[in-house]
Amino acid sequence: MVDAAFVSELRERYGIEFKNLRLLDEAFTHSSYANEHPELDLRDNERLEFLGDAVLELTVSEFLYKRYPDWPEGELTRLRAASVCTRSFSLFSREAHFDKYIRLGKGEEQSGARKRHTLQEDTFEAFNGALYLDQGKDAVVKFLQQVVFPKIAAGEFSAASDHKTFLQEYLQKDGPVDIRYDVLDEEGPAHERQFAVAVVVDGQRLAKGEGRSKKMAEQDAAKKALASLKAKAH
Amino acid sequence: MVDAAFVSELRERYGIEFKNLRLLDEAFTHSSYANEHPELDLRDNERLEFLGDAVLELTVSEFLYKRYPDWPEGELTRLRAASVCTRSFSLFSREAHFDKYIRLGKGEEQSGARKRHTLQEDTFEAFNGALYLDQGKDAVVKFLQQVVFPKIAAGEFSAASDHKTFLQEYLQKDGPVDIRYDVLDEEGPAHERQFAVAVVVDGQRLAKGEGRSKKMAEQDAAKKALASLKAKAH
Repeated sequence: MVDAAFVSELRERYGIEFKNLRLLDEAFTHSSYANEHPELDLRDNERLEFLGDAVLELTVSEFLYKRYPDWPEGELTRLRAASVCTRSFSLFSREAHFDKYIRLGKGEEQSGARKRHTLQEDTFEAFNGALYLDQGKDAVVKFLQQVVFPKIAAGEFSAASDHKTFLQEYLQKDGPVDIRYDVLDEEGPAHERQFAVAVVVDGQRLAKGEGRSKKMAEQDAAKKALASLKAKAH
Repeated sequence: MVDAAFVSELRERYGIEFKNLRLLDEAFTHSSYANEHPELDLRDNERLEFLGDAVLELTVSEFLYKRYPDWPEGELTRLRAASVCTRSFSLFSREAHFDKYIRLGKGEEQSGARKRHTLQEDTFEAFNGALYLDQGKDAVVKFLQQVVFPKIAAGEFSAASDHKTFLQEYLQKDGPVDIRYDVLDEEGPAHERQFAVAVVVDGQRLAKGEGRSKKMAEQDAAKKALASLKAKAH
């Protein structure tokens, strides 16, 4: 059975109480543990992981769809891909202490599997699959509102490098345009150089950006250009 | 507005009536049509497609999870991938006549986009995204019970070539084994040749299969071997 301390922790931190504790057990049973204890006739968490993966895909998609009503599909897809991935799920898993409670076989334990990000990700998916089966989608959403959505909304998973792409897509909606980034200025010593860059679209300067590298200044310019274009469109 | 004939067809064939018809309109508005009619201030279906993609991923996953309670994760994942793809979704789209009702711009129409499978797939996803927003997951499931699940259950998307892989995974759960396929017999003229093949595992013959090619006979043997192994395991 899953650790009693974990059952309390779920209740106290997230207000979650499983009706069917066997689902919670299953979610925290790694195949290596099930294989090592054939006498217990345990199910490992892989089927729940299969389901949980899809549960997370939908709940995160719906969150993004509703939170960003003006974003085009391309931006939604990019942020979904950055939010629904090994890096983020393993992080959530550790924050919720799931890595502490997953039951591993001895060999896996010794090989350091508990610290493996893919294993932590799998546990996070399996937990959400179990919660979905036990209590439905709304319970999953309530849990994600505590551990996932605030981080997405805070921009933790938006790659900064996306502004140039966003600007390009925005401008090219109605056909090809010429987008150019011109370096306006470059000053300071090598270790603290500052760049100033202008983004020029079809010969017209849209915005200026600054940064500690040419790339960062370009991103800054693209971000400002997008903001001003969107402000004008409204 | 979406064609009135389509609204009737949805009601009569599937019992679906949208509360918010603007969602249905949006689902059937291709970006080329929206771009061609700026005066109508239309939204294209790409955001709904983003959402619908995740809705279908979850509803199909849940169907498979519940329908095949004894399948390991690998088999579920394979059948999900084969069921949730361009080929299947474009097929469902045509069967529901979605390809007839999607609104296209003139250029796209002339280039034959209406027959393009990816466009049909996108429409299917957008429709399910719209239905989900309008009426929730249960309404989507009810629709899929009519157009999708029976086909999956009938094996329409299980690649026949999976039996050999399934057998291999089943046998290698507890370590490596030696799997060999021996041709036992080959008869008949070239255009209607019949092959008989045996699958031999660690030197022991597990089953015999037949087919019109060596590959098909091997698949048949693997399928029979799996069935007898599973029967013994219970």
